Amino acid sequence: MNYVRQTTLEAVAGLSTQELDFLPIENGNCIGALLLHIAAVEKGFQIEFFDGRSPNEEEELKWGAAYSLGQKGREEIKGAPLDFYLKELEEVRARTLEEFQSRDDNWLKDTCIWDGHEANQHFIWFHVLEDEINHRGQIRMIRKMLP
Amino acid sequence: MNYVRQTTLEAVAGLSTQELDFLPIENGNCIGALLLHIAAVEKGFQIEFFDGRSPNEEEELKWGAAYSLGQKGREEIKGAPLDFYLKELEEVRARTLEEFQSRDDNWLKDTCIWDGHEANQHFIWFHVLEDEINHRGQIRMIRKMLP
Repeated sequence: MNYVRQTTLEAVAGLSTQELDFLPIENGNCIGALLLHIAAVEKGFQIEFFDGRSPNEEEELKWGAAYSLGQKGREEIKGAPLDFYLKELEEVRARTLEEFQSRDDNWLKDTCIWDGHEANQHFIWFHVLEDEINHRGQIRMIRKMLP
Repeated sequence: MNYVRQTTLEAVAGLSTQELDFLPIENGNCIGALLLHIAAVEKGFQIEFFDGRSPNEEEELKWGAAYSLGQKGREEIKGAPLDFYLKELEEVRARTLEEFQSRDDNWLKDTCIWDGHEANQHFIWFHVLEDEINHRGQIRMIRKMLP
């Protein structure tokens, strides 16, 4: 998890606000939106599996655009410097690591229902990583497309 | 591993040769090249860690362009139908699964040196998956860019 985060941070190191806002394709996502999306997905899983509830109104307002991306993401996520995104990523991750530390390895085998399928906590947090890696691949590609 | 492969296959389902050859950016990679790269990376790790040797001349010739991508990949990897790429992916994966079946879970903790760092087999095969997920993210994005 730390290794994947390290590669994400390397992929965005030194980007300006303008570069973070750059849209590679008309119906695509800027790097800033993908970074906030990575944090939003992790936040969503925290709420669902650590807190055992749905996001409240405040959380929907703060994370909705980043979670769903698309038109809403393009409208709402722009103009922020890299530090803003890094701080959000770090804050969300800090809670995940805290919660991990308070559990033992057996918890990873706890079954749950996710997206209509039976899963376990190991798969849930693998999926958080998988989403980050998927978007890191896109970030690397968008970075090559910067004007 | 099967889950990730399933998502890769879904990301490319139904693509034509022309679509597999489409270059999203001048110095980028087409989807076909990324698919062959996914197989080439796995093949490379098989040779290094299952066979304990470096790739031979024949292997270099067959997999070199897909492994390194870039200019060589753009020149050499094109014109093939989806089935060609799927067959290569499947053949390489079949050996990985066979080798896994002949080992027990303790083998995953075996340490090794990779890219100058100490690693273990668990990390090695996580990295194979990580590379596939990274490029699947790019494939999804290139698919949205198809003319």
